[in-house]
Amino acid sequence: MENKKILLSEKEIPTHWYNIVANMPNKPLPPLNPATKEPIGPEALAPLFPMALIMQEVSQDKWVEIPEEVRDVYKHWRPTPMYRAYALEKALDTPAKIYYKYEGVSPSGSHKPNTAVAQAYYNREEGVKRIVTETGAGQWGSALSFACEKFGLECEVFMVKISYHQKPYRKVMMNTWGAKVHASPTDLTEAGRKILAEDPDSPGSLGIAISEAVEVAAQDEGTKYALGSVLNHVLMHQTVIGQEAILQMEKAGDMPDIVVAPFGGGSNFAGISFPFLRLNFEEGKNIRCIASEPASCPKLTRGQFRYDFGDTVGMTPLLPMYTLGHNFVPAPIHAGGLRYHGAGAIVSQLLNDELIEARAHNQLECFEAGLLFARTEGIIPAPETTHAIATAVSEAKRCKEEGKSETILIHLCGHGYLDLAAYDDYLSGKLVEHEITQEEIHESLSKLDTPLI
Amino acid sequence: MENKKILLSEKEIPTHWYNIVANMPNKPLPPLNPATKEPIGPEALAPLFPMALIMQEVSQDKWVEIPEEVRDVYKHWRPTPMYRAYALEKALDTPAKIYYKYEGVSPSGSHKPNTAVAQAYYNREEGVKRIVTETGAGQWGSALSFACEKFGLECEVFMVKISYHQKPYRKVMMNTWGAKVHASPTDLTEAGRKILAEDPDSPGSLGIAISEAVEVAAQDEGTKYALGSVLNHVLMHQTVIGQEAILQMEKAGDMPDIVVAPFGGGSNFAGISFPFLRLNFEEGKNIRCIASEPASCPKLTRGQFRYDFGDTVGMTPLLPMYTLGHNFVPAPIHAGGLRYHGAGAIVSQLLNDELIEARAHNQLECFEAGLLFARTEGIIPAPETTHAIATAVSEAKRCKEEGKSETILIHLCGHGYLDLAAYDDYLSGKLVEHEITQEEIHESLSKLDTPLI
Repeated sequence: MENKKILLSEKEIPTHWYNIVANMPNKPLPPLNPATKEPIGPEALAPLFPMALIMQEVSQDKWVEIPEEVRDVYKHWRPTPMYRAYALEKALDTPAKIYYKYEGVSPSGSHKPNTAVAQAYYNREEGVKRIVTETGAGQWGSALSFACEKFGLECEVFMVKISYHQKPYRKVMMNTWGAKVHASPTDLTEAGRKILAEDPDSPGSLGIAISEAVEVAAQDEGTKYALGSVLNHVLMHQTVIGQEAILQMEKAGDMPDIVVAPFGGGSNFAGISFPFLRLNFEEGKNIRCIASEPASCPKLTRGQFRYDFGDTVGMTPLLPMYTLGHNFVPAPIHAGGLRYHGAGAIVSQLLNDELIEARAHNQLECFEAGLLFARTEGIIPAPETTHAIATAVSEAKRCKEEGKSETILIHLCGHGYLDLAAYDDYLSGKLVEHEITQEEIHESLSKLDTPLI
Repeated sequence: MENKKILLSEKEIPTHWYNIVANMPNKPLPPLNPATKEPIGPEALAPLFPMALIMQEVSQDKWVEIPEEVRDVYKHWRPTPMYRAYALEKALDTPAKIYYKYEGVSPSGSHKPNTAVAQAYYNREEGVKRIVTETGAGQWGSALSFACEKFGLECEVFMVKISYHQKPYRKVMMNTWGAKVHASPTDLTEAGRKILAEDPDSPGSLGIAISEAVEVAAQDEGTKYALGSVLNHVLMHQTVIGQEAILQMEKAGDMPDIVVAPFGGGSNFAGISFPFLRLNFEEGKNIRCIASEPASCPKLTRGQFRYDFGDTVGMTPLLPMYTLGHNFVPAPIHAGGLRYHGAGAIVSQLLNDELIEARAHNQLECFEAGLLFARTEGIIPAPETTHAIATAVSEAKRCKEEGKSETILIHLCGHGYLDLAAYDDYLSGKLVEHEITQEEIHESLSKLDTPLI
C-alpha cells in the first residue's frame, strides 16, 4: 500500500510570501484615477488600507517575510495536506497521476484565511480597531471573522442580502467568531439607502456591498477595509499554498505537468500556481497552469483585456483586467465565489502574455466531476472547487486517449459542507445551465467607456 | 514557537483493534433472550450481522487484526491530527496542558467512519449486497453511506423524520455518497405502517427507525443491518483513535492525566479511552477517563445498572446497561447523537467497577465551552463534542485553583459545520435548559420489568 497523504511539519510552513511581480517579463499595469486617467500612487489607498499592505500592493521584491505571529496562527491548519488521488485515477482508468492540495482544513473551510490572517495582523499593528468588508456566498466574510477574532479586532461584514437569507449557516459561522453581519443593502450607509430608495426589495449584489463597506471604512479613523481577492497583496499572501505544494511534490518524488485551480478574482489560482510559475521563470520548467472558470462568467476565456472598475457602482480605481464589464450580472450559479466580472491585474497580464491558460466549464459538468470526486476521494468539494476538478478530469481523459502518464495537481480550495443544497439540486435534476451568448458579452462590454490597453 | 500539531505518518495507522474485554477484571454480562431470560448465542444475531462481526462481538482476544483494505480506506483521513490547545489554555489562564485529538477530518466529519468502513468491509466479504441502518441527527447514516460507496454496497438509511426535515444537509450528504434515505416512520415496513396508522403525523424516533431497519434486514437474504454504537465490536473498531493518541502523546513527550470524551452509546468514549485504560491495566498508570453526557439525558450519572432493551419498541435482546429506561424520551437538545437512553455493556461494566468516571453538563454550559473553543482554537465543534470540552474546561479551572499542571486530552470527535443552527440558537439567546427531575427518572425506570443485575 502506498501513501495517500503527503504531509509537512510546521517547521515547513513558508517563511516568506512569493511576489511574482519580480519575475514577470511585463509588469502589471498600474491602477488609474477614474477622473484623470493618471496612475494613482499608494497614498490614494491610505484611507482604506494600512500602509504595510499598500506597500505590499506595489512591491517589486521577490520575497516578503511572513511575520512570526501570522505564521503562528497559520499553524492552526497549515501546512495543509496533499493527497494522491488513487481512487479518482482508478475510476477514470487514466495513466495520469492526480494529486490534490487541500485547503478545506482551515477553520472556515477554504484558502481565504491565508490572507485574512495576514490582513488582520497588519491592521492591528497599525492600531486599527475594526475591519469592514463585503461577502457574497460568505467564504471571505467567515475567514476574516476568524482572523479578526484571533487579533482582537472588531469585524463587520456586509453580506449580499440574497445570500444572507439563502446561506444562513455562513452568517452564523461569522457570528460564532464574533463578527457583526448586515444584510446588504442596509440603511446604515448612504450607498445602501440610495439603493433601498430605488428598490426596497433589492436582493443586493457584491458591488453594492463593496460600496457600503468602503463608505463605512472611509468615514472612521480606526476602521479599515479588506478585500479577499483581486489585489496584488491578497494574491501574494496565498502563495504559501503553492510553496508547500512544491515541497510536497518533491517529497512524493514527482512534479506536476499541469496545475489547475478555480478562478474567481485570482487569489485561489495565484496561491497554488505562482510558485510553480516561478520554477518556469527561474528553472526553465514548463508547468502548465490552468485557471478554471464558469462558462456562464467567462472573463478569462471570452472577456476583454482593458481598464475597468473593480466594483459595480464604479467607486474603485480603474484596474487593468480581463473583464466582462463591471455591469455584467453573472448568472445565479451555485459557485458564488466565481461570480465576479473581472480578473486581478497580475493574472490578467500573465494570461495576456500567454504564460497561463484558462478553461471554462458549464455547471453540470462541474457537479458531475464534483460528485465523482466525493464518491472516490471522500471529500465533498465546494461548488467553486468542482471547476478545477472538471478541468483535471478532462486532462486525465486526454492523457488516457494519448497514452500519456502526465502529473496533474488540483487546488482543492474548499469543502462543500455548507453548500450541500447545491448538490441536492444537482442530484434531483433541478440544476439548469446558464448559456451566455456572444451578443450579451458584446453588449456588456460596449457600455464601457474606460481606457483600452 | 512551539508546534501546535502532532502528526503521524500513514505507516503509524494501527494494525490491530484493541479489545478491552481481554483486560477487564469483570467481563461484560451477556445479552439475554427477552422471552427466556437466557443468554443468547452468536447464532441469534446471524440474520442481522455478518459472522465476522458477530465473532468480534463475543471475542475475548486482546488484539484483532485490521484488514489491509480497511486500513487503506482509513488512509483517506487517518491518522487524524492531535493539537496542543495553546490558545484555549491561554484564554483559561490555566497551568493545565490541554491537547485534543480531532476526528472531524473524516469525510463525514466525525469518528463514525472508523467502524462504518470496517462493517461495510466484512459485509462485502460475506457477499452482502445491501446494508440497512437507522440514523438520528445523521452522523452515523452519512458515515455508513460513505463506507458502502467505498465497498460497492447499496446503503439504505431510515432517518428519524423530524431530523430528516430539520437537517436536510445530512440527507444530501448521504445522497451524495449514493445512499437511499427514508423519513421514518415510512409505509415501507410493517413497523412503520403500524406507527403511521396510530399517528399519521409521527415525528419518528430512533427506536422506530431501528425497528424499520431491522425488519428490512431480517426479511432479505442479501441485506444486513448495521449499528453505529453500543455494541462491543463497534466500540472496538473505534480504538484506532486512542492508539494513535498514545503515539502522539509520546511524541509530544507527555501523557494525559485525564482523557475526556462525549458519551452517547459509548463508541466515541471507548475509541479514545480504552487504549489509555489498557495502560492503566497493564502498566499501572492512573489515567482518569471521563465520559461527558448531557444533564438532560444522564444515564451514567443518574441511571440504573440493569438489563434493558437497546431500542424503544423492545425488539432487541436485553442488554446489561446503565439506563434511564427504554421508554425514556430525551429532551430535544441539539446534541442529537447523545440522546440515547442507555450505555453499551462494556462501558456500563467499567463504570460499575469504578474504572471510569462520568460527568453531566447542561446545554448552556456546553455551548459556552464550544464557543470559547471556536474563538480560540478556530474549529467549531459539534454540539455533541462540546460536552467533552465543558468537562475539560472545568478540570482546567480546577487545575488553576489547585495550582496543578495536569495534562488533559479532549476527544474532539466532530465538527459543527452542519450544526450551525444550534450555535445560532445559543448566540441569539433562544437555547433553553431541559431540567430533569428525580421523579421523572424514577417513573421511567419503574416501568421496566427487565432483570436487575
